[in-house]
Amino acid sequence: MRSLVYFQSGGPTAVINCSLYGFIAEAFKSDAIDGVYGAIHGVEGLINDNLADLRKEDLEQIELLKQTPGAALLSSRKKLPGEEDPLFFKIIETMKKHNVGYVLVNGGNDSMDTCLRLHEFFQKNHMDIKVLGIPKTIDNDLVVTDHCLGYPSAARHVMNLVKMAVLDAKAYSSGKVILIEIMGRNAGWLTASVDLLPEDERPDLIYLPEMRFDEEEFLYQVREIYRKKGHCVVCTSEGLDLPRRNTGGVDSFGHVALEGVTFYLSELIHERLKLGTRVMDLSLAQRADPYLVSRSDREEAIAAGKYAVKMALEGHSGQMVAMRRVPSDKYEIEWFLAPVSDIANREKKFPKSWILSERELSESFREYLAPLVSRSVQVINENGIFASAKLRLVKAK
Amino acid sequence: MRSLVYFQSGGPTAVINCSLYGFIAEAFKSDAIDGVYGAIHGVEGLINDNLADLRKEDLEQIELLKQTPGAALLSSRKKLPGEEDPLFFKIIETMKKHNVGYVLVNGGNDSMDTCLRLHEFFQKNHMDIKVLGIPKTIDNDLVVTDHCLGYPSAARHVMNLVKMAVLDAKAYSSGKVILIEIMGRNAGWLTASVDLLPEDERPDLIYLPEMRFDEEEFLYQVREIYRKKGHCVVCTSEGLDLPRRNTGGVDSFGHVALEGVTFYLSELIHERLKLGTRVMDLSLAQRADPYLVSRSDREEAIAAGKYAVKMALEGHSGQMVAMRRVPSDKYEIEWFLAPVSDIANREKKFPKSWILSERELSESFREYLAPLVSRSVQVINENGIFASAKLRLVKAK
Repeated sequence: MRSLVYFQSGGPTAVINCSLYGFIAEAFKSDAIDGVYGAIHGVEGLINDNLADLRKEDLEQIELLKQTPGAALLSSRKKLPGEEDPLFFKIIETMKKHNVGYVLVNGGNDSMDTCLRLHEFFQKNHMDIKVLGIPKTIDNDLVVTDHCLGYPSAARHVMNLVKMAVLDAKAYSSGKVILIEIMGRNAGWLTASVDLLPEDERPDLIYLPEMRFDEEEFLYQVREIYRKKGHCVVCTSEGLDLPRRNTGGVDSFGHVALEGVTFYLSELIHERLKLGTRVMDLSLAQRADPYLVSRSDREEAIAAGKYAVKMALEGHSGQMVAMRRVPSDKYEIEWFLAPVSDIANREKKFPKSWILSERELSESFREYLAPLVSRSVQVINENGIFASAKLRLVKAK
Repeated sequence: MRSLVYFQSGGPTAVINCSLYGFIAEAFKSDAIDGVYGAIHGVEGLINDNLADLRKEDLEQIELLKQTPGAALLSSRKKLPGEEDPLFFKIIETMKKHNVGYVLVNGGNDSMDTCLRLHEFFQKNHMDIKVLGIPKTIDNDLVVTDHCLGYPSAARHVMNLVKMAVLDAKAYSSGKVILIEIMGRNAGWLTASVDLLPEDERPDLIYLPEMRFDEEEFLYQVREIYRKKGHCVVCTSEGLDLPRRNTGGVDSFGHVALEGVTFYLSELIHERLKLGTRVMDLSLAQRADPYLVSRSDREEAIAAGKYAVKMALEGHSGQMVAMRRVPSDKYEIEWFLAPVSDIANREKKFPKSWILSERELSESFREYLAPLVSRSVQVINENGIFASAKLRLVKAK
């Protein structure tokens, strides 16, 4: 009997720990598995022999994973080097020591690169270790799969917070220009979600990285809207192509940490239109809000963890679990496996054909997103604060 | 029979429309009242004869006021001028036209100034019009009352969002310094709320405007915490005494619109400590989140609206409705009236004796806040988005 290792990689989402829950639930009930481990800090846990023995966890805490944001096993942005690197020998040692037969990688584009490298390395070295990916990213930019786990919950958070801002912004007859910054470096899926808000609850202007952005046109639009309404609400992806400051160097995948598209726009509006502004960067809560989790997202994230265990035990490797919609009157998905080599390091942009203008996206997009965000979850609170899992993370011997 | 006018003033809270709901519920069931009106855009509605006839509203929409953020009757930051100003003649005209006998002002410190001026003006001119205040401010800085309506819900939002950020920030072994900016210009009550978070879920450093802030000491603390943990979470009131930019001029009460204590600190940390940062300004959602409303806050906001109607009909004027705790094992409050002249234009700061250090506040504060935030509410969603009241606001003839 072989052991099973799961790890989390890249930025957390509100439901990444639901996939961990699904992984644990499925692994615990299998007779064909020896150890059930979680690598701490992603691939770093494989390199440093830092695996948590998940059989040592309290079942009540495992249950709470369903509403625990952050990466319960801690994450990593480490990119694996070329396969001659000594790091791989350390990974081999960890694999042998714990008799690992299966590795599940829960992450986004970059993490699928890690998934692919591990798969190829094990194969090349004739090691019988199956590697599968579980998709996760609030950016919704993985190719092949209908959508990415974590995106629907992030979208529900964004839609609701933007509605709050819109209702708040209306209060004054001479209000401000509210500039709302939404995550999404190269793909505008998350910002686009606000297009589901009905008239009177939606922002006035929506900018995705996939749209042409013209400063003069932007200023004209803001001025006209402000003149009519006495306020203006603008939603923009963090990834708009505008001057920004670097706030935290470059990660190992070469992504520069940028901040503040909205600060640039704020100063532009001050200078040119002499209007008061308020910047609202939705920041970390977009990917960490247990209250606004989408119920289907939670259910699918759990199902993904379970399906990945089943497929690994069936002997699949070098694949990512993915979803496609079943043609039907109501929303329904089915799971399948797709080669990770088709997915790693690629990006699914927001379709240009779904962009009508900076005021409205297409009905096709709204039909795509609506069933993903329509249902809510119940949250267990303790003293008014959401309860979260406290794992023991006992090191596997 | 005389008419009753209610209006909203200053910044919205997540429960200000609950007080409107309470006002409507109590007014509708009284036989002693003629018209039930809401002034649009606060005192501007009195000046411009812009009153909405609330009897024309749909009851289902009135019910939804309980979970509607923003100011449903629209707000104002207008400061009333001296009583010789012609504006007052316009107010008299509106009062006479609609046979107004009672005016209820729902707002914070500045709005209590408006309340006081109206009361004194009517009294001086021998007009039999009663004026009462209903307290509302997320800053919790009104004197006399045990706490301010809106503060507990804002505190629940802040506590939960900060917990989300803390859990998210732990993910990486080399993380960032997270700088969280919380509302509170001169009083740190809202920022202080994060002190209720238990170990492992709380920020590392907490700064209130009432604390001495030393840059060198701050940098030392951040560096030490980062060295030990690989990340650091800092919560700070927007009102810290640090250089900031003016983003929207000055309002009629003389308050300058400031932004970005955390941006200043972010640049300081870059330059001096060479660490990556992430700024998280909790912004408008602090005062507009229906999901994180405190149940007692909602119930008390409704009760305040009802109590104000009763007290006005009993003939009280120049008072604000206020709460005090009943000495008891469990949390219980009682309502009373306090002279608005004791409250207007004053501020209740966070007590210095409750500040132990930038890492911890006192148990007395936690005992004060805990019962105000412990219970949650159910929210009605439509397609995954919170439902909100759509008022008709039919102009009173």
